[in-house]
Amino acid sequence: MELASLHELYVEGLRDLYSAEHQILKALPKLHKGATNPKVKDVFATHLAQTEQQVVRLEQIFEELGMSPKGKHCKGMEGLVAEGADLLKEDANPDVLDAGLISSAQHVEHYEMAGYGTVRTYAQLLGFAKQAELLQTTLDEEQAADLILTEIALSVNVDAIVGDGEMVE
Amino acid sequence: MELASLHELYVEGLRDLYSAEHQILKALPKLHKGATNPKVKDVFATHLAQTEQQVVRLEQIFEELGMSPKGKHCKGMEGLVAEGADLLKEDANPDVLDAGLISSAQHVEHYEMAGYGTVRTYAQLLGFAKQAELLQTTLDEEQAADLILTEIALSVNVDAIVGDGEMVE
Repeated sequence: MELASLHELYVEGLRDLYSAEHQILKALPKLHKGATNPKVKDVFATHLAQTEQQVVRLEQIFEELGMSPKGKHCKGMEGLVAEGADLLKEDANPDVLDAGLISSAQHVEHYEMAGYGTVRTYAQLLGFAKQAELLQTTLDEEQAADLILTEIALSVNVDAIVGDGEMVE
Repeated sequence: MELASLHELYVEGLRDLYSAEHQILKALPKLHKGATNPKVKDVFATHLAQTEQQVVRLEQIFEELGMSPKGKHCKGMEGLVAEGADLLKEDANPDVLDAGLISSAQHVEHYEMAGYGTVRTYAQLLGFAKQAELLQTTLDEEQAADLILTEIALSVNVDAIVGDGEMVE
């Protein structure tokens, strides 16, 4: 793709996030299955439903732009998802695994915060007020999800200090 | 590696960041070379020097732990660096490329914020006060670097709206 103006960079950023969200939709059920703590399971289930809505928002934006959301594979999210998958393969105490899954999810949230923050700003500069609003809604959700993960981590991490209980694989 | 307690997860998180920082050390000179705007070039040069110090801090922590910092390849950073490298290969207007490089760097910063925030908290819980302090120093630097990038983006993005000037590859 030729990047002649901010508009092209905006579309590329949106496509990157569209690919990222689809990778997250595939990864979240695995994180949910791997988690033991009910609070951690819940947060992954809630975020799956949110992610579906975030994909719909991106589709609305592409419809307004008259363009396809497809055409880019997000390598950044590929690496982040691979790290989560590697963690699930490790021989881990359940509390430690929960703590690790939270950390993995927070890395994903931070990727999305950087991505949505960027395209939200581009939308504002390009005069796409409605699109900027949709992107801000998703950005707010990502930031809120990150805070919830931090809060849950407070107790999960303490349980993991002395990792008692049976090891899981 | 067996993840029997938070201590192992802490070491794994530190090794992930050690690998990430080394990948950043290799990537930053390329971003610096690809940038046109002097402010963007400056921020990459400054961050290169900071990254070298961040590596030293991680080495101090591993020395205190009596362990090797090596043994993990950070797949998350590999994906982020690959995205930056792809951007440099695109046929882009210089202002648009600068805007894209800022976005790419902010994704890297966000990865590091998630990573350092996590290990800083683990260090506190594990009673490694000195290590937590070192990690907090790096976290503060990453957050400050992200804010500087956001500030520079304000003018760079505006220049990129109408991407005049010759295309670069």
